[in-house]
Amino acid sequence: MLVNCVVYRQGRKLADISVEAISDHLSDPEAFVWVALRNATDEELAAVQHEFGLHELAVEDARHGHQRPKIEEYGDMVFTVMHLVEYGPTDDLSVGEVAVFVGPNYVVSVRNRSSQNFLGVRERCEREPHLLQQGSGFVFYALMDAVVDRYFPFVDALESELEAIEGEIFEPGAARSNIQQLYDVKRRLTVLRHAVVPLMDAAGKLYGGRVPQVCRASGEYFRDVYDHLLRINATLDTLRETIGTAIQVNLSMVTIEESETTKRLAAWAGIFAVATAFVGIWGMNFEHMPELKWTFGYPLALGVIVAVCGVMYWRFRRSGWL
Amino acid sequence: MLVNCVVYRQGRKLADISVEAISDHLSDPEAFVWVALRNATDEELAAVQHEFGLHELAVEDARHGHQRPKIEEYGDMVFTVMHLVEYGPTDDLSVGEVAVFVGPNYVVSVRNRSSQNFLGVRERCEREPHLLQQGSGFVFYALMDAVVDRYFPFVDALESELEAIEGEIFEPGAARSNIQQLYDVKRRLTVLRHAVVPLMDAAGKLYGGRVPQVCRASGEYFRDVYDHLLRINATLDTLRETIGTAIQVNLSMVTIEESETTKRLAAWAGIFAVATAFVGIWGMNFEHMPELKWTFGYPLALGVIVAVCGVMYWRFRRSGWL
Amino acid sequence: MLVNCVVYRQGRKLADISVEAISDHLSDPEAFVWVALRNATDEELAAVQHEFGLHELAVEDARHGHQRPKIEEYGDMVFTVMHLVEYGPTDDLSVGEVAVFVGPNYVVSVRNRSSQNFLGVRERCEREPHLLQQGSGFVFYALMDAVVDRYFPFVDALESELEAIEGEIFEPGAARSNIQQLYDVKRRLTVLRHAVVPLMDAAGKLYGGRVPQVCRASGEYFRDVYDHLLRINATLDTLRETIGTAIQVNLSMVTIEESETTKRLAAWAGIFAVATAFVGIWGMNFEHMPELKWTFGYPLALGVIVAVCGVMYWRFRRSGWL
Amino acid sequence: MLVNCVVYRQGRKLADISVEAISDHLSDPEAFVWVALRNATDEELAAVQHEFGLHELAVEDARHGHQRPKIEEYGDMVFTVMHLVEYGPTDDLSVGEVAVFVGPNYVVSVRNRSSQNFLGVRERCEREPHLLQQGSGFVFYALMDAVVDRYFPFVDALESELEAIEGEIFEPGAARSNIQQLYDVKRRLTVLRHAVVPLMDAAGKLYGGRVPQVCRASGEYFRDVYDHLLRINATLDTLRETIGTAIQVNLSMVTIEESETTKRLAAWAGIFAVATAFVGIWGMNFEHMPELKWTFGYPLALGVIVAVCGVMYWRFRRSGWL
Amino acid sequence: MLVNCVVYRQGRKLADISVEAISDHLSDPEAFVWVALRNATDEELAAVQHEFGLHELAVEDARHGHQRPKIEEYGDMVFTVMHLVEYGPTDDLSVGEVAVFVGPNYVVSVRNRSSQNFLGVRERCEREPHLLQQGSGFVFYALMDAVVDRYFPFVDALESELEAIEGEIFEPGAARSNIQQLYDVKRRLTVLRHAVVPLMDAAGKLYGGRVPQVCRASGEYFRDVYDHLLRINATLDTLRETIGTAIQVNLSMVTIEESETTKRLAAWAGIFAVATAFVGIWGMNFEHMPELKWTFGYPLALGVIVAVCGVMYWRFRRSGWL
Repeated sequence: MLVNCVVYRQGRKLADISVEAISDHLSDPEAFVWVALRNATDEELAAVQHEFGLHELAVEDARHGHQRPKIEEYGDMVFTVMHLVEYGPTDDLSVGEVAVFVGPNYVVSVRNRSSQNFLGVRERCEREPHLLQQGSGFVFYALMDAVVDRYFPFVDALESELEAIEGEIFEPGAARSNIQQLYDVKRRLTVLRHAVVPLMDAAGKLYGGRVPQVCRASGEYFRDVYDHLLRINATLDTLRETIGTAIQVNLSMVTIEESETTKRLAAWAGIFAVATAFVGIWGMNFEHMPELKWTFGYPLALGVIVAVCGVMYWRFRRSGWL
Repeated sequence: MLVNCVVYRQGRKLADISVEAISDHLSDPEAFVWVALRNATDEELAAVQHEFGLHELAVEDARHGHQRPKIEEYGDMVFTVMHLVEYGPTDDLSVGEVAVFVGPNYVVSVRNRSSQNFLGVRERCEREPHLLQQGSGFVFYALMDAVVDRYFPFVDALESELEAIEGEIFEPGAARSNIQQLYDVKRRLTVLRHAVVPLMDAAGKLYGGRVPQVCRASGEYFRDVYDHLLRINATLDTLRETIGTAIQVNLSMVTIEESETTKRLAAWAGIFAVATAFVGIWGMNFEHMPELKWTFGYPLALGVIVAVCGVMYWRFRRSGWL
Repeated sequence: MLVNCVVYRQGRKLADISVEAISDHLSDPEAFVWVALRNATDEELAAVQHEFGLHELAVEDARHGHQRPKIEEYGDMVFTVMHLVEYGPTDDLSVGEVAVFVGPNYVVSVRNRSSQNFLGVRERCEREPHLLQQGSGFVFYALMDAVVDRYFPFVDALESELEAIEGEIFEPGAARSNIQQLYDVKRRLTVLRHAVVPLMDAAGKLYGGRVPQVCRASGEYFRDVYDHLLRINATLDTLRETIGTAIQVNLSMVTIEESETTKRLAAWAGIFAVATAFVGIWGMNFEHMPELKWTFGYPLALGVIVAVCGVMYWRFRRSGWL
Repeated sequence: MLVNCVVYRQGRKLADISVEAISDHLSDPEAFVWVALRNATDEELAAVQHEFGLHELAVEDARHGHQRPKIEEYGDMVFTVMHLVEYGPTDDLSVGEVAVFVGPNYVVSVRNRSSQNFLGVRERCEREPHLLQQGSGFVFYALMDAVVDRYFPFVDALESELEAIEGEIFEPGAARSNIQQLYDVKRRLTVLRHAVVPLMDAAGKLYGGRVPQVCRASGEYFRDVYDHLLRINATLDTLRETIGTAIQVNLSMVTIEESETTKRLAAWAGIFAVATAFVGIWGMNFEHMPELKWTFGYPLALGVIVAVCGVMYWRFRRSGWL
Repeated sequence: MLVNCVVYRQGRKLADISVEAISDHLSDPEAFVWVALRNATDEELAAVQHEFGLHELAVEDARHGHQRPKIEEYGDMVFTVMHLVEYGPTDDLSVGEVAVFVGPNYVVSVRNRSSQNFLGVRERCEREPHLLQQGSGFVFYALMDAVVDRYFPFVDALESELEAIEGEIFEPGAARSNIQQLYDVKRRLTVLRHAVVPLMDAAGKLYGGRVPQVCRASGEYFRDVYDHLLRINATLDTLRETIGTAIQVNLSMVTIEESETTKRLAAWAGIFAVATAFVGIWGMNFEHMPELKWTFGYPLALGVIVAVCGVMYWRFRRSGWL
């Protein structure tokens, strides 16, 4: 589905045009066309490919989707795939994609399997003509910046979740739910890492040394995006390590708890075993057991048992088993 | 066994020829010969080696098989070994090989220990003469692309298996079968990694900077293959990490379950130990135990025991042990 | 809030000036202006940006804060973000920031969310005019050196804490508090690593090969700072590894302790089970049990039980279970 | 001990000569001398050093032995140390060494603490004069190839051992012997890794870019050796990872088994505790226990006990505890 | 404290001189001065700094000590810090330092917190004038070689300790002392790694490509030292990995032992529970229990109990629980 198709000249919007009219504006070196597609059909893609002369392999990647994030050069065209992350129906993260073709005087974005639009990006660009006149490279930056900025809330959400789990990690009895949640956070983390790490690796080549022609005017802006990706990546790395440690610590806590339970069990079992042995003794049927005939034999026996068990209880208590 | 031996000229099939006739066509700079062998005998290999003047070390690698995937240059010839993965009789992965010799005007593929043929590749190439006229390098790309594309279903299968295990990982009682399956997935993963990682490392040198002569015309196609290998590799890395975490989590779940069992055992043991101690007391043979003579002594005793045990049960319940 | 704004010429303080007067001094190639801001308002930042012509992206980073440490070049200006670590109210580490803009004849530092000032740095610089006349680059070094030197006490504190935990690690019963403290140390370590590692990576580019113009005169000083960062980083790496091992060893100790408890429990359970079985035998109601009629049957029975249990106790003792 | 000392010219053996006669043949640029020593005495080494003018540090390394594998250049001489692995008396791997000095017209090999000779290498070289006339570099390749080929059986043995252990890993009761064997395999693996990894790192520099003069003619042969080392290394890496996983899985299996034992123990303990409580009840000495007087009281009591225990058994069975 | 101060010319000792006389000899290009200081006072360091014109930052590092090992160039002077490891009073490793300043015609070594002197190095150098005439660079090599050679006994000691622990690792009951010793070895290993790894990284730059002027004449000697450091490092890496595996295996052994104890406990508990249940049955007070009246009731009952327990014992034995 075509979302927009607009010609810009010297940083200002010229007109909404139809896809077929694109080629009329490509000859003007000071203008560029910005096309946005959503869940594009094969016909739409073919039309766009024809207008801009896009490379077949790049178009195929945009058509099939399910690519890893990447930035590739085809002659003077830069082709980019970025992941769009959003919450799916079951609180899991779902991953869509936006493919961007950036040529000297055109930008084509193709969005798939995602409800996130880039209307805000277009509006902000149109409000800053002095930046927009850097050309198609700046639009590319603006799209990339928007995609990357949308990763931050997900990273923050993971950090909050992990902090919540950390608050529970030394609570007795929470081990099972902790480990489930940690595993869950780990899975979401993996989704984010897949979106961020390859894009970061690729974005590092958009400023500094040998840079694609279309990005050259906006080097410091791309470095800014790269810096954001570095920051997200550092946070994700820390999260990953923290999850690993938390799983390990959680396991330790379970073992420690179990060890304490075993001790307590051992202590009570000991106390009752002693009591049972005593009452067993006086339950024997020997004829000559003088204490059985004593008037105060019974209370005395009870007293002895309680006393012995009390001493045991006190000693277990002191050694921290109870 | 010889599968085919065909001469192509300017992207179109000229004729099926015999191996002995090959040298007649090698002088034509616009033609190339594409030979496919399966489980080649020493004689067949020697004949091919003689016709194309292949390097002895490369031919030996093709003859012996059991090589790791690699891409080597011998003068202007590129020698490649790729793994062909398929399901063996017992659901394990079995690994075959295809060795490809690519010269300026010939391609020789030697397939060993595998039932996967490349007839489809040849057909597709013959249907696209405008691409096939890029020469032997394009055939090399087409073969490599076919090999790499055949890895995807195996990776997908591993992902599905792992997801199935993940669905079971927090189920009580499934630990033993989970761990067996995880170990199994890990082994298959290793087979795939052996096929993919060295090939990826080597394929990264087929486009961009210093590239073998025969691959130069098809640089963007080789980058596409390389990108597929990167994608597979990223997925395999994630799988590997997920398996590691899953084994760890599985162990945690076993420990947690055992810890809960221990608590429950401790609770019931405690309750019955108390009951046993009480009945032991009234089983003692002291003469002066007045309660034994009471008419309602027995039901009272039972009531006391049930009451005490009930209180214990209730408290264990409240503290989550039962 | 403006802290100071001073002009220096040939290493000596010339005058305190107002922000508006800055531009009057920028034309003098032998002078430079050193401005220090704290929790700067948007207006103050805008004024400074205007005076020195700072790049918008850098100023935005200084305004928003929460950046990772970095050193970036914007033309002939070097922009740096460093973390300032201090103890928060609850013994946790809190992280502030200082952003430094270094141009050929100015240094602007903007401090956020931190109570640490840099007055001492300014004083020391003013006491050494022969060094200060290296220009703005030396001030940059002096600030960086001060920031890095303030990391050492935190690293030392972590080392002491870890040593204290290590002293407890083989103590029985300390497992739970050990693991909590280890987790705590790990968290603080992570905060420090975030401050140190990116700064170290960046600082390595301030001496040796291609170096920003303003830092060129002070190369050996920047190498000294870099060396300090390397040293801190090596210590943090060791701490991290030691924490990992300590958690593992702690878990081992818990398991060993539990194993010993289980053995002791098993031993006592065994001894009492034997005693209970014996008294049970003589508590049976068979009519023909001759030993029950013997005069010394009872003491003999007690003797047998004590003897058997004693032998068991002695054997368990010998095999280390008790 | 001198093993051989032979002069070759244009790929053919000329004569066996004495060490003292070596210098007579060194002036002929088309000839080279191949000397093999075993457990060389200091005098023998000194004589050889004198004849060829070998560097003192290299000779010292050959004399002392216990070096790590390496390839070093001393002017136009290449000095190599390689490990020779063999089974020691107690099934452990023992490590010997061969040091090789390769100059433009000589090869000296010094073998220490190993029973493996290189007579076969010499024979094979003499059978292929067209290769041998590549000069001393080819002899170097042939020795290296022989050493590396002798690593394969050890790697295969480790793989077989590991597979045997893997077959046992899910067998109940085999945990102790599994872990011992895994540890054993790990130790042998370490010995092999020490032989292979440094040699691989060094061998990668014998073909391609800047290569020592004596190796230049045999570049593709050295790449072949390097490829073998890569292959061995990849296998060793996989073995190492598999051992790690196997140890982890083995520990999991022990924990799972223990958990199942605990459950079974809990179940039977529960059943017998109930039975014991019941018989205890009817063992009490209350006067008014009507059921004790009933004619069928006893069988009824037994029936009740058996029924209750049976129900418990059935429920435990159903929930998988028994 | 000044240890020596000697002038050498063309590899031979000329004279012992005082620190103040040093500058008289610095003009002679064929002579160099070798000064050795121990726990130098600030005055001594200042005097030496003045004589040779040493850089302030380097002198400060030598004064403060507690540096990590490093090699730094200040103009044509090379400054080195190396760790000196020795056994402290409590069997722990204590770390001293030697700082070495190497200029074109001087060597200054400053030793701190260590009892190891370098008199032997000086003697050996003086005995080999043909090497010593390589100049100050050779003295630098000789000192470095001496320092590195003194690491070997510590590494060997760690290896022996670890082997001793490995011999105990499968012994039942040794887990606690094993883990303590492993932790101890790990700590010493860390001390050695801190001494070796940074020095190795730095020493790799003293031969081959761009090398400091003073080291150029002795390149092959520095490569020899570097090779020793590589060897130590490889051993330390192996030790580290082995310790990791040993801790893991030790934990496995504890778990396995505990699992066996649990089984044995379960088996005996089962046997005695059965016996107790039986004697409890015949201890019930039902009036109509015909077997109680039989003459051989009692021995028969005992026989039944023994038989049942015997069968249980035999079955547990067969299944490996006892």
